[in-house]
Amino acid sequence: MSIGVGVLGTGSIGADHARRLSRRVSGAHLAAVFDVDPHRLSAVREELGVAGHDRAEDLIEDPAVEAVVIASPGSTHTDLVLACTEMGKPVLCEKPLAPTTKECLQILEAEVGRGSRLVRVGFMRRYDRGYVQVKRAIDEGNIGVPLVLHCIHRNLTAPSFFTSDMTMTDAAVHEFDVARWLLREELVQVAQVPVKRSPLVPEPLRDPQVVLCKSESGVLVEVELFVSSQYGYDVRCEVVGSTGLASLETPTTSAVVHRGLRIQGIAPDWQTRFALAYLDELQDWVDGLRSGHTTGPTAWDGYAATAVAEACMRSDDKGGWTAVSLVDRPKLYW
Amino acid sequence: MSIGVGVLGTGSIGADHARRLSRRVSGAHLAAVFDVDPHRLSAVREELGVAGHDRAEDLIEDPAVEAVVIASPGSTHTDLVLACTEMGKPVLCEKPLAPTTKECLQILEAEVGRGSRLVRVGFMRRYDRGYVQVKRAIDEGNIGVPLVLHCIHRNLTAPSFFTSDMTMTDAAVHEFDVARWLLREELVQVAQVPVKRSPLVPEPLRDPQVVLCKSESGVLVEVELFVSSQYGYDVRCEVVGSTGLASLETPTTSAVVHRGLRIQGIAPDWQTRFALAYLDELQDWVDGLRSGHTTGPTAWDGYAATAVAEACMRSDDKGGWTAVSLVDRPKLYW
Amino acid sequence: MSIGVGVLGTGSIGADHARRLSRRVSGAHLAAVFDVDPHRLSAVREELGVAGHDRAEDLIEDPAVEAVVIASPGSTHTDLVLACTEMGKPVLCEKPLAPTTKECLQILEAEVGRGSRLVRVGFMRRYDRGYVQVKRAIDEGNIGVPLVLHCIHRNLTAPSFFTSDMTMTDAAVHEFDVARWLLREELVQVAQVPVKRSPLVPEPLRDPQVVLCKSESGVLVEVELFVSSQYGYDVRCEVVGSTGLASLETPTTSAVVHRGLRIQGIAPDWQTRFALAYLDELQDWVDGLRSGHTTGPTAWDGYAATAVAEACMRSDDKGGWTAVSLVDRPKLYW
Amino acid sequence: MSIGVGVLGTGSIGADHARRLSRRVSGAHLAAVFDVDPHRLSAVREELGVAGHDRAEDLIEDPAVEAVVIASPGSTHTDLVLACTEMGKPVLCEKPLAPTTKECLQILEAEVGRGSRLVRVGFMRRYDRGYVQVKRAIDEGNIGVPLVLHCIHRNLTAPSFFTSDMTMTDAAVHEFDVARWLLREELVQVAQVPVKRSPLVPEPLRDPQVVLCKSESGVLVEVELFVSSQYGYDVRCEVVGSTGLASLETPTTSAVVHRGLRIQGIAPDWQTRFALAYLDELQDWVDGLRSGHTTGPTAWDGYAATAVAEACMRSDDKGGWTAVSLVDRPKLYW
Repeated sequence: MSIGVGVLGTGSIGADHARRLSRRVSGAHLAAVFDVDPHRLSAVREELGVAGHDRAEDLIEDPAVEAVVIASPGSTHTDLVLACTEMGKPVLCEKPLAPTTKECLQILEAEVGRGSRLVRVGFMRRYDRGYVQVKRAIDEGNIGVPLVLHCIHRNLTAPSFFTSDMTMTDAAVHEFDVARWLLREELVQVAQVPVKRSPLVPEPLRDPQVVLCKSESGVLVEVELFVSSQYGYDVRCEVVGSTGLASLETPTTSAVVHRGLRIQGIAPDWQTRFALAYLDELQDWVDGLRSGHTTGPTAWDGYAATAVAEACMRSDDKGGWTAVSLVDRPKLYW
Repeated sequence: MSIGVGVLGTGSIGADHARRLSRRVSGAHLAAVFDVDPHRLSAVREELGVAGHDRAEDLIEDPAVEAVVIASPGSTHTDLVLACTEMGKPVLCEKPLAPTTKECLQILEAEVGRGSRLVRVGFMRRYDRGYVQVKRAIDEGNIGVPLVLHCIHRNLTAPSFFTSDMTMTDAAVHEFDVARWLLREELVQVAQVPVKRSPLVPEPLRDPQVVLCKSESGVLVEVELFVSSQYGYDVRCEVVGSTGLASLETPTTSAVVHRGLRIQGIAPDWQTRFALAYLDELQDWVDGLRSGHTTGPTAWDGYAATAVAEACMRSDDKGGWTAVSLVDRPKLYW
Repeated sequence: MSIGVGVLGTGSIGADHARRLSRRVSGAHLAAVFDVDPHRLSAVREELGVAGHDRAEDLIEDPAVEAVVIASPGSTHTDLVLACTEMGKPVLCEKPLAPTTKECLQILEAEVGRGSRLVRVGFMRRYDRGYVQVKRAIDEGNIGVPLVLHCIHRNLTAPSFFTSDMTMTDAAVHEFDVARWLLREELVQVAQVPVKRSPLVPEPLRDPQVVLCKSESGVLVEVELFVSSQYGYDVRCEVVGSTGLASLETPTTSAVVHRGLRIQGIAPDWQTRFALAYLDELQDWVDGLRSGHTTGPTAWDGYAATAVAEACMRSDDKGGWTAVSLVDRPKLYW
Repeated sequence: MSIGVGVLGTGSIGADHARRLSRRVSGAHLAAVFDVDPHRLSAVREELGVAGHDRAEDLIEDPAVEAVVIASPGSTHTDLVLACTEMGKPVLCEKPLAPTTKECLQILEAEVGRGSRLVRVGFMRRYDRGYVQVKRAIDEGNIGVPLVLHCIHRNLTAPSFFTSDMTMTDAAVHEFDVARWLLREELVQVAQVPVKRSPLVPEPLRDPQVVLCKSESGVLVEVELFVSSQYGYDVRCEVVGSTGLASLETPTTSAVVHRGLRIQGIAPDWQTRFALAYLDELQDWVDGLRSGHTTGPTAWDGYAATAVAEACMRSDDKGGWTAVSLVDRPKLYW
């Protein structure tokens, strides 16, 4: 009755998913792992005592693998997702669903062709207790009509290969999804705002970046992205409504006071900040697989977030507002 | 490889443990449940699709049950724990281990007789992230030598059958265990302090209560217990050291601002406040069972906490400081 | 030795200044008041037992008036300031110094012609303890190089005559001055961002508004202005630097917890929020008059803030970035 | 019309009062100062350009001195207060009114003999915005019936001459007055609780100390005093009522985040923490002198607080609860 899950990609986040499937999720077990890097692969195999595959295809076709978590680099997602859906195997795909809308649309077409959803996208923030409370405050009418969203997304440091576009496809997509989810609307226009570069950031990375988005009804979503803030991992969200505001608070659980200072720790990374959200996301996915109920962010959500990121990357060259091009939403996603 | 766990007692906390074992814990499954109340029993059986037993003994002897969670009323704990240990089955026993030290000592003797530990006590706060941070601040020397602990334990309301003694055996034992764990010392003296009764509390319940404890090295532990605070479930702890302080903060994850007020929710109950701690406690116990490593609060911890509660109940009649009588700690618990 | 101060305009803020001069400021006394509205004038005269004038000129020429606070509507400021400086009488002029740069420049010319500064502008936030701490954190290098400022300025409600331009000249000038003061740089470009209108705001007021500014070195200053937030008076400022951030916190001094909620009050208005800053500003001005040391925001600061507001109003019609036109800064203001 | 005020004692707090009278209070001026230490005296005279007296009596008799602030050591208060009241000069006497109830009673008798109040005691906390809000929450019934007060009073370090009794007469009296004022009741019993000594404190000072008090209606007031906390000046108060709680929060106005830490400053001393309360206290006193309305803490309040401190010092020798002996309250103080 336990579901066998395979994990494609055992880098930082993939290894974490593998550990959770192996040790923390009920109703599922880690069936197999794959990584292009044989050292990384064998490290995870050894740590978790799990079977490994040399090729992603082998894992996908492995009969012990009933569902797949995709945590490989974004550029590989489309092929892997399509291979899974072709086999009829449910997928939890880390964000971005794919780095381009063109690829995302291939996935949508495949799902629409099948007539059922198999793909969930790893927008784990929807499982974070704070975000859920913010959403509830909006939905219950406690703040009136949402008018402005202020979003902040900061990382401690960025890896050396990080690019300005990756800030959009890898970091900002979280914010775009959150805004769409909280507002229950698509983002239809974007604009990049020039910001002073941090002197600590290597050229040509632009960091921080500020992006403006407009929703269908005109809500302004302002997003600051700073992937090398040097101080920690910090995600905040303040929704300003016509009669009040709802805000995501930096979670605090303890404080130390000494030498004239009151000190609280900031999470160093997303693993720490969203530990419980990741766990709840995975458990909810597994529960859904077992019960046959499909919930959570869909391929459409992945596509829409990528479409906003793509518009941001285009807007960078042109200035001013840039339209987000979205196809009509297939019935499958209503 | 998955461990079959039986749950004795399917009241509020027992049903929660059963749900977690059924749905959230990795490496274990819910094998069977028992409750004296057939309605309550069948409700849980139906909800979770699990086997039930009419008698606790039958569950303990059930070969599908490899380990047992005891969540029945405190007065039944001793017999059930002893029945489990006799069968060599590991036990996670909800607090209190037993309401009297006499009973606790029977359990200690049984374990010492066997020569190995089978019993863990459900002091789940040791798994709470905030408490762990407070402990780390102490252990790392950030606050110097601990001198005073201020502990607050408030519940929304108490059930009608609740007594002043239950405040000690059921609520205060958590605080006593926390103090012992943070200080790495036994509490050796206690004193009850007269407090004005809440006019909303039915006679003869004394509520709130304030208790003072002294540790072996002289640290003062001041505990306020208010089981019908009317406002929510609120647990706080401030450790004052010679150079600073460490404090457990009420966790906050979001805020709403409207009508001139900034508003944050208080947890209504322990299930909400310590949801993650309960989950981590259970997972850690299961992990330990599978790996053969025994960790977590022992029967000795359960005994020591009950001994402090017992001294508090005695002190009530006499006034002044009352000694906590503890037997010598058997080697098994060092 | 006590300095006689006259107050021009006894509306909300003028009456407050009169009260402070009468009751809270050391080394000065309220010498006379003037208001165009005879009822308002006599109310203040009666409350404070002070002489009144029917014409502003009479107050300015009154020998008992050694220094003047101007708190009349912005459109009257220039004439009044010039009348004062002509008489050689020091002025504390409420913001804006004047609603247009053309007028501000007349004041600058008058001061430069005299060769000395007589005019201080009422940017009282520079005296707020929180802002001073934020500035110190920047100046001491605790956050590295400032890169982005997030400013929020919200009022409970706006008077019925309030216009979108007044949001810039009366509210946003505070933010522009704060940004210039914190960054020690001029703001040289601005852009207005379209925002969804609050459904509770009467046409044609645009509310909230979001304005972007760029400083000389490229720092982005993002300002949200919401004059009818419905929830209270809320001013915040977060300065993001290359290695950390400094933030102005909403001052809190107490909390009430009941019915499952932790509740803290939000200031209803600027009088409450900045009570101490107004007092310290006035005392500092009086101290400077007595000691002959001139400090605080100058006419140049008033001019520069109005220039940014003016650019915002222009930018509204054109879209995109609009340059802030500033004359060369006269030596008098270095 | 400005009231001439003389200051007796120009140590830390006396010099601060002199500065406020000289620079910050409206309607009064610093008329003269006295200190037994000629160096300290001349330093203040020079700094503030004020007349000085070699003998306290001379200052009290000085016709330019219409009212007196007493900030000399507590042991000198009684004689000085009595000399002032004999001259009919109003007094603001720093706490303690006097170190013993015997002395306090002499002052009460003198006032009662005159038939009018001339003495106010420097319990400035009653002017602190946070305490005022806590009091309002109680008075408006937001927390039901008060049942328990938790009070914390910590200083950075204590001077070398500080004694365990001074903790009661100089520090704890503030807490006793706050409790009486918030509860509108006298404290009638006290008990000292043994606490582990800080290893950083020189013998024979006991530090921290914990004191319990009971009010007439049975409210428990628990006070922790730690005069050498090493970390800063920290005063807190939590009033637990039958339906909720009101708490004094440590005021925060800004925060800095860097290196993974969110950092807020703690006030180093009472001057910083209660700067505004001291100013408001002095202004209110001067306003009352000018208007003829007498408000604020009376000699009775000073006596009652000293009576509690005295009982604490007695209780130290005997153990258990000690009664606070209070004479009947003269009508003058109702």
